[in-house]
Amino acid sequence: MDEAPGLRGLELRRRPTIALLTDFGLEDTYVGVVKGVVLSRCPECAFIDLSHSVSPQNVREAAYLVWTAHRYMPEGTVIMCVVDPGVGTDRRAIAVRWPMGYFVGPDNGWLTYLIRDVVEVSKKESEVELPRGWRLVELTRDEFRLETVSTTFHGRDIFAPAAAALACGTAMERIGEAGRTLKVLSVPEAENSYEAIKGYVVHIDHFGNLVTDVPARCLATRFRVTIGTESIEGLDSSYQVRKPLAAMVGSNGLLEIAAPNSSAARILKVAVGEWVSVVNEPDKPSDRGSR
Amino acid sequence: MDEAPGLRGLELRRRPTIALLTDFGLEDTYVGVVKGVVLSRCPECAFIDLSHSVSPQNVREAAYLVWTAHRYMPEGTVIMCVVDPGVGTDRRAIAVRWPMGYFVGPDNGWLTYLIRDVVEVSKKESEVELPRGWRLVELTRDEFRLETVSTTFHGRDIFAPAAAALACGTAMERIGEAGRTLKVLSVPEAENSYEAIKGYVVHIDHFGNLVTDVPARCLATRFRVTIGTESIEGLDSSYQVRKPLAAMVGSNGLLEIAAPNSSAARILKVAVGEWVSVVNEPDKPSDRGSR
Amino acid sequence: MDEAPGLRGLELRRRPTIALLTDFGLEDTYVGVVKGVVLSRCPECAFIDLSHSVSPQNVREAAYLVWTAHRYMPEGTVIMCVVDPGVGTDRRAIAVRWPMGYFVGPDNGWLTYLIRDVVEVSKKESEVELPRGWRLVELTRDEFRLETVSTTFHGRDIFAPAAAALACGTAMERIGEAGRTLKVLSVPEAENSYEAIKGYVVHIDHFGNLVTDVPARCLATRFRVTIGTESIEGLDSSYQVRKPLAAMVGSNGLLEIAAPNSSAARILKVAVGEWVSVVNEPDKPSDRGSR
Repeated sequence: MDEAPGLRGLELRRRPTIALLTDFGLEDTYVGVVKGVVLSRCPECAFIDLSHSVSPQNVREAAYLVWTAHRYMPEGTVIMCVVDPGVGTDRRAIAVRWPMGYFVGPDNGWLTYLIRDVVEVSKKESEVELPRGWRLVELTRDEFRLETVSTTFHGRDIFAPAAAALACGTAMERIGEAGRTLKVLSVPEAENSYEAIKGYVVHIDHFGNLVTDVPARCLATRFRVTIGTESIEGLDSSYQVRKPLAAMVGSNGLLEIAAPNSSAARILKVAVGEWVSVVNEPDKPSDRGSR
Repeated sequence: MDEAPGLRGLELRRRPTIALLTDFGLEDTYVGVVKGVVLSRCPECAFIDLSHSVSPQNVREAAYLVWTAHRYMPEGTVIMCVVDPGVGTDRRAIAVRWPMGYFVGPDNGWLTYLIRDVVEVSKKESEVELPRGWRLVELTRDEFRLETVSTTFHGRDIFAPAAAALACGTAMERIGEAGRTLKVLSVPEAENSYEAIKGYVVHIDHFGNLVTDVPARCLATRFRVTIGTESIEGLDSSYQVRKPLAAMVGSNGLLEIAAPNSSAARILKVAVGEWVSVVNEPDKPSDRGSR
Repeated sequence: MDEAPGLRGLELRRRPTIALLTDFGLEDTYVGVVKGVVLSRCPECAFIDLSHSVSPQNVREAAYLVWTAHRYMPEGTVIMCVVDPGVGTDRRAIAVRWPMGYFVGPDNGWLTYLIRDVVEVSKKESEVELPRGWRLVELTRDEFRLETVSTTFHGRDIFAPAAAALACGTAMERIGEAGRTLKVLSVPEAENSYEAIKGYVVHIDHFGNLVTDVPARCLATRFRVTIGTESIEGLDSSYQVRKPLAAMVGSNGLLEIAAPNSSAARILKVAVGEWVSVVNEPDKPSDRGSR
C-alpha cells in the first residue's frame, strides 16, 4: 500500500497523466491556465479533458461523469475535478490515492458514485471512512500552492500544483496532512425487487439519450420499461431500430432510453431525476451488460 | 507498400499521433474515455481533435470535414472517425492504411471525399475497390478490443484500442482480417461546363461562411456567382471589403461566399445543400487556388 | 538578451509548448489543422488551448484573455493568437520574443493589455516601440510558411509553421526580418481618484461574472460599487454568501460582480463595456489582491 499505484513494473513506460473534469466552460482561459500551471511543473504531462461543461456548481453531475470515466483512465492517472461551489469557504481541498491512481479536488462529494462501487455507503449525505487501501491528504502546504492564492480560483492556485506534483511522482505524504474521511452526497436510490424496479434518469447525454441508474444485469429477458406515459418492451441492440423509442444497454452497463435518429430528451421532455419503472416478466435474468 | 507509412527514415523523430473526428460533443466524457483507452495502451500518443461537433450521425458532414484536414496531419497519423449511426448493426469496423497514414472507424462512407480525390468513383452510393497502395482490415480480433464490447460505444471498445495499436506501430495484418472494398456515399456532383458551373453549399463554417464545392481553378478572371436571389461579381481577397457579400477562395481551394463582418449563412438564410451557380465571362481561366 | 528565453539552465527539461487563442470555434477542423501543421514540424510539442471561442474578429476580447493567461504559461511557451479580421490585407504577420517566451500572430493589437503592464502606453490606438529586451520579426520568409499561402487562413499557412519553428528552438532572426514597433488598441481607461473610481466591465465569464478593470488594490476596506441601478457594499470572499449580488476579487486581481448561484450578467442584463463606479470610504486602502 505504500507504493504509488500505476508504477509497479511500469517505471519506464508510464507517462504523467492528468484527467480534468470542471464546470469552467471553454470560453475563458480557465482550463488553459490550469494546464499552464501544470506544465510549468511537470512538462511531460498528458491531459485528458473529461468534460468542462458540467452545469455550473453541479457536484452531483460531476460525480456521475467521473464515475463513467474513471475505469478507462491509464493506471496512475491523477483525476482532478474542480466543480467547487464552496471555493473560498472552509471546505477542504484534498488529494486521494486509490489503487488505480489519484484524485484531486474539493472535498464536496464528487467521488460519491465511485465510492459507492467500493464500500457500503448510507443513502444520506455524510462523511465516510476511506475504503481500505485508500489514502487522503488535505492540501494545506504552501510549497504545493501558487505564491498567491485567490479566493475564487483554487483550480489554478491549489489543485493544479498538487495534481502536477502527484503526476510527476511526488509522494502523497509530502503534499499535505493525512485525513481519514471523505464527504459523500445523498443518493435517491431505486427501490429494487426482482419483479419491479424503480429507477431514475441520472444523466442526459449529448445525443439526448436518457441514462437511468438501472443496471442491465437486473433486467429479465422480457421486460417493460415505463417513463411518464410512454412504455417500451424489451431490449434493442442498435440505434437503427424502427421504433420511436428504444431501450438499450448503455456504454456503462445501465439501462438507457433512446429515440432512434432523434433525441429522447426532446421527445419526452424529460429532465435528470425523472423516475422510470421496469417490470420484469417471470424468467431468468439476462446476463447482458458488464457491471 | 509493405512498410508502414510515415516511418521511412523517421524512426527517431516520429511520435504516435491520433486525430479524432466524432459527433460525441464535449458535454459527456465520451471523448475523454476514448483518450484514456488509447493512453493506457500507447502512453506517448499525441491527440489532434479535428472536431467533436459533427451533427449527430451525419456521416456526410464528417466526410467533408476529414477531407479538409487530412493533408495537414503529420505523416503516419491515425485518423479515427466515429460518426456511427450503424453501431450495433452488422456494419463493418475497419482500419485502412494509405500512403500517408491510417484511418480507423466504421465502414460507412466517411472517406468518400478523400477517396474521390484519388480514384474515379461513381456518383451513387456503392462499394469501391481500394485504391492502389491502400490496405484494409476488418477489426474482428478480440486481442485488439476491450474485454467487454458494448453495443453502443465502439469508439471506446473497438476503435480506440485499434487506433492505439496502429499509432504505436503494430502491423495492420495483426489487428484484423484483410478486406478489399470500402463504402462510399453518393455525391450530388455539380454539372460543370466552362461557361456555367452549377455547384452547391457543402459546409457552413463557424463564421457563417458558405463553402461551395466549386474549385477555385474553375473560375475565370471575371465571373458572377448567384445564390438564391443574390449575386456577386468577381473574387475578393479579404474579409474587409466593403460589400454585403463577397466571393472568396476558401482555405481549401473552394469558392466561398462570405459576409464581411457578419455571417453569410444568417444573412442569406441558407443551409447546407443550397445550389449556387457561376457564370464565367469568356476569358482565360484564372490560376487562383491550389487544388 | 540574445539567448532564447526559457532555456537558461532548462535545456534538459523544457518541452516545446504552444498556447493557442483563436476565434475559430470548435465545429470546424481549423484548430486541428493548425495542430497538425505544428506536429508535422515539431512532434514533441504540447498544446495549451487558451480559448477558441473569442467572439469572431474581436481583437479586444483576445487582448483581455491573453492577458489573464500569459503569466501562467511555462517559460518559453509560444503564445499564438489568431483573431485576425485583417487576414488577406497588408496587416503584418509577426513573432515577438519577450523575457518569458514568444508571441506569434497578426500585428493588430492583441498584446495591448500585456504591453500596458510593461510600458507606458497612450490611451489612443497607436504604434508603440518595443519594450526593452523584447524583439520582433515580420514573418515574411517562405521557408517558414506552407508552400501555398491562402488569403483566408494564415493560422495554418503562416502562423503555425512559425510557432512550430520557435517552439522547437529555431532562432528568431532566422524566421523573419527585424521590426521595431507594435500596434496597440485604444483603451478607455477608468478615471481613478482615491475616493471615487470609474471603471467598466472588460469581460463576462462562463459563469456570468462581470469582470471589471478596477484593480483590487484600489479598494478601501469599506466601499460601495454601483452598476446601473444596483449597488453592493464591501467585499465578499465566497460565491456562497446569501446576497443577490456580491463584490469579489476575481482570480486576476480585479473587482468582479457575481450573483451567488446564478449569473450576474443575466440578472443585471449587462454587456461588456458597461460602466461601474466605486466609492471608497475614508480609510486606508486594503492590500487585497495580488496585482
